[in-house]
Amino acid sequence: MDDAALLTDLYELHMAQAYHAEGMEGTAVFDFIVRRLPPGRNFLVAAGLESVLAFLEALRFGPDDLDWLRATGRFGEDFLRYLGELRFSGKVDAMPEGTVFFPGEPVLRVAAPIAQAQLVESRVINLLQFSILSASKAVRCVLAAEGRQLVDFGMRRAHGAEAALLTARCSFIAGFDATATVLAGRRYGIPVAGTMAHSYIQAHASEEQAFAAFAQGYPGGCTLLVDTYDVPRALGRGAALARRLRADGTGRIDAVRIDSGDLVEQARLARRLLDEQGCPEIRIAVSGDLDEHAIARLVMQKAPVDSFGVGTRLATSSDAPYLDCAYKLAEYDGQGRRKRSTGKETYPGKKQVFRRLDDDGVIVDDTIGLETESVPGHPLLQPVMLAGRRCCPAWTLAHMRQQLRSQLASLPPGVTGLAAAVPPPVRISAGVTQLAAEVDHRFG
Amino acid sequence: MDDAALLTDLYELHMAQAYHAEGMEGTAVFDFIVRRLPPGRNFLVAAGLESVLAFLEALRFGPDDLDWLRATGRFGEDFLRYLGELRFSGKVDAMPEGTVFFPGEPVLRVAAPIAQAQLVESRVINLLQFSILSASKAVRCVLAAEGRQLVDFGMRRAHGAEAALLTARCSFIAGFDATATVLAGRRYGIPVAGTMAHSYIQAHASEEQAFAAFAQGYPGGCTLLVDTYDVPRALGRGAALARRLRADGTGRIDAVRIDSGDLVEQARLARRLLDEQGCPEIRIAVSGDLDEHAIARLVMQKAPVDSFGVGTRLATSSDAPYLDCAYKLAEYDGQGRRKRSTGKETYPGKKQVFRRLDDDGVIVDDTIGLETESVPGHPLLQPVMLAGRRCCPAWTLAHMRQQLRSQLASLPPGVTGLAAAVPPPVRISAGVTQLAAEVDHRFG
Repeated sequence: MDDAALLTDLYELHMAQAYHAEGMEGTAVFDFIVRRLPPGRNFLVAAGLESVLAFLEALRFGPDDLDWLRATGRFGEDFLRYLGELRFSGKVDAMPEGTVFFPGEPVLRVAAPIAQAQLVESRVINLLQFSILSASKAVRCVLAAEGRQLVDFGMRRAHGAEAALLTARCSFIAGFDATATVLAGRRYGIPVAGTMAHSYIQAHASEEQAFAAFAQGYPGGCTLLVDTYDVPRALGRGAALARRLRADGTGRIDAVRIDSGDLVEQARLARRLLDEQGCPEIRIAVSGDLDEHAIARLVMQKAPVDSFGVGTRLATSSDAPYLDCAYKLAEYDGQGRRKRSTGKETYPGKKQVFRRLDDDGVIVDDTIGLETESVPGHPLLQPVMLAGRRCCPAWTLAHMRQQLRSQLASLPPGVTGLAAAVPPPVRISAGVTQLAAEVDHRFG
Repeated sequence: MDDAALLTDLYELHMAQAYHAEGMEGTAVFDFIVRRLPPGRNFLVAAGLESVLAFLEALRFGPDDLDWLRATGRFGEDFLRYLGELRFSGKVDAMPEGTVFFPGEPVLRVAAPIAQAQLVESRVINLLQFSILSASKAVRCVLAAEGRQLVDFGMRRAHGAEAALLTARCSFIAGFDATATVLAGRRYGIPVAGTMAHSYIQAHASEEQAFAAFAQGYPGGCTLLVDTYDVPRALGRGAALARRLRADGTGRIDAVRIDSGDLVEQARLARRLLDEQGCPEIRIAVSGDLDEHAIARLVMQKAPVDSFGVGTRLATSSDAPYLDCAYKLAEYDGQGRRKRSTGKETYPGKKQVFRRLDDDGVIVDDTIGLETESVPGHPLLQPVMLAGRRCCPAWTLAHMRQQLRSQLASLPPGVTGLAAAVPPPVRISAGVTQLAAEVDHRFG
């Protein structure tokens, strides 16, 4: 998007103009935090950092943007000139993507001249909240699937194009094996996977003909959809075709997909019929209204499913379609700041999250402390951008997947389960508590 | 997006290649339908058509797309050549944006050579489902607000960039007055509105100073946020500033915004304090976790609120973050087709929706009939694209708003309420029923 700089809330521009007019150029420190866990969730997964850094590096108000802003009559020439020259010049510290974290912890911290740090708020939240939401939902499917294949089928019900792409990206970080979204394959190098739709079967004069034509087109292997008309009949047709292709050496049926009905029953039926008909190598894929709970049920009931296609409920994080999150001022010009609005209090200062592990590498607790404070544990926030430029190489998605895998191993028993459990405690350091009291005393 | 053609599910490309290889070039008719109403909803609002038409007109596979597809090893040269030359050449019939509709009714119908009609499926669903979801959620806020001002604050919690833009667009169609999302203002010509954030107040040495500086920057009028520290104190400061500006003739306070706490109580307190302090002209805006139910409560309790900022729950349609919808084959090469998968049955044929109104203009019923059938009522689907080109001028957003307003007036009593009511019946014509039986007989 050439006009991405305008993808912001109007008030960010209003405030930036006011800061500019007032000559307020001090450094502001903002924290992105999630205030609360969604119901039934035990932890969250950091994601979206690369998108944020790319946005910050590319931030430019072009001549067309400035013309449009001028025409609104809300902005003066002096401020428009400032915007035209604006490049993000701040510092960013963040948890690497794939890091497990808990409510109240700064996941990303921006330190920049206040007008800049304020201007980027809307898009930073827009990218981070959905990425975290998506990775945190997807990892539950991964935990439920216990090693079975998972494919992101979410594009059609994702909220627009970017949500589809971010869902593919974040579910892959979480441990999904592939996505059906082709553009995500191209943009991020994620493996793509796909089968056929009911319409393909329906368009043909018969199901046999559709199966045969598709198999001929994909001699390296394909998946047949078997619930368009009658599942047992379709399985018989698929098995007959597979045997014929095997005998002729002209192709292969990799799997069948079932997209409706009672999936436990249907998968068992499919496994039995395929085995009886000499096709034990054909795998079983299921889809249709799946989420982590449906996957866990199928696994618990030992349904012979090899692959899950997860769409709608993943792409919309349907049980928790948003996070209670915020991007809050913690310091201005070297002095701590905080918000005291009812139920939305925040902590002041340039903070770090210190994580303590026990001898088995399991998390004991996290402490939100001041960056300069001596607090036991290893720091989770890493410097990732200095003076508006990335200061370390971007992680690959494979690296992020690995990060999450090892982070999951550090969670106490129960916390990786689907049921609500007690996450490790998040403590506030003495330094932060004291600074909060000082700030409260100063601003009344 | 230059690579938008790849924003599709892999299976669409797989099926298109198979159709191409088989020489299947007959016309396929696909219907976009919503199968069920979300819980507690009584009707849906058609939206997203313009986005779909723009996508279809612009559909191109560029050289880079083709190179990438080639490199996957999944596609042959003959098919890639076909893709390179592909332009959407089909016909589209659709309900105008702002039309009220019910489950099972085709909202949009695509008729095109089958590979084309199939290829566009993923993006058509992606655009339509979220637009309908968004307009259908927003209109409930509009009905609840009973004429009070509504502003879309949803960008930050929308699922990515496009969801933010579509939320602004669809909520405006639904009757919202403005959006905070600047880019939506630029792209769609929607009025933009914005106030200030807590961080602005916090960055200043005192709340008074922050209020004064902001008011000085916006002498034409501004909104002050009054819940950063202490609401009554902030209201006193705001009122004092407003009186001073009025006396000096140097500015104006338009409104105060409250973003936390019990909004009924806070709004009453604000109204009383502002009136007592000689500022009855200052309006009261509220925000924070609002949805149609919260708005209705505020209206019912006669909270003196002039303007609602609705964000998260609007942008994510949080109570119903997806629609049970589908894009289903209804006809191929002149012959009806249908799906019979358990719980997902569809109706065959080239269909139209006929709406009957009573003498007061209230909907009696809708009938899904064959396009060529004689069914009482006026047809809701209009031809909008012929041979891949729009065949009528695009409606303005103002026209769509007007369409919805008059459509709302045609809903029976109760259906426009927030509680679940019985929507008008949707009937299936004799012609469609008979065709379904014929199709079932033909495909077994």
